[in-house]
Amino acid sequence: MSGNGGKSATAQSSAANDSEPVYRIHVFCCVNERPPTHRRGSCGGKGSRQLCDYMCRLGMATGVRRIRINHAGCMNVCEHGPVLVIYPEGVWYRFETQEDVEEILRSHIVAGRKVERLALSIDPTTLHG
Amino acid sequence: MSGNGGKSATAQSSAANDSEPVYRIHVFCCVNERPPTHRRGSCGGKGSRQLCDYMCRLGMATGVRRIRINHAGCMNVCEHGPVLVIYPEGVWYRFETQEDVEEILRSHIVAGRKVERLALSIDPTTLHG
Repeated sequence: MSGNGGKSATAQSSAANDSEPVYRIHVFCCVNERPPTHRRGSCGGKGSRQLCDYMCRLGMATGVRRIRINHAGCMNVCEHGPVLVIYPEGVWYRFETQEDVEEILRSHIVAGRKVERLALSIDPTTLHG
Repeated sequence: MSGNGGKSATAQSSAANDSEPVYRIHVFCCVNERPPTHRRGSCGGKGSRQLCDYMCRLGMATGVRRIRINHAGCMNVCEHGPVLVIYPEGVWYRFETQEDVEEILRSHIVAGRKVERLALSIDPTTLHG
């Protein structure tokens, strides 16, 4: 990838990277766990850690190079959880089952096709305080 | 931001997001901790968790909207650690002190100027196993 074309609409254009990305696909799965009675719930409380680890094992088996699948702390969209985000694209998904994980890997990560049924459309203006 | 112009050079162009990003600046700090004797070391073993939490508190105080600073698991560039990555730009930094954190916030995140002295240039072909 050369230059930072297309990123100029963000406020950070002058700080953008101009070299080959370290990871072409960098996935962050929220694994934050709150007490079961917490009013916002939590991704970790819905099994996201196990699903993330499953995704990581499957991801390595795909043979796709330069992907990384990471645990992350609370990304503040708990109401949609369990959630993951794929950078640098910034695509967000809800994933509840191993089948969801398999489809995100097979379709988005391997074939480059967004999984519409799992994709989240999050209005930034509604983010929790 | 409209369209996904400029992202077409990645393999994932057809899956790219075409809406306003949830976070304009999404920072992930590795907080993975290994035993002190581990040959690869670890970001968490060098104080990254406390520095990430410091960055989070300072970040909120900047008043910059739609930024998020998250803990993350091992991002497999341990030799450079403590590391953080800023998406969607994909800029990587080494951060060792509170002063480093302050400079990344003040320069990169608030003013949009990359901090050259802390920026990492990581050759993807050298990633660990």
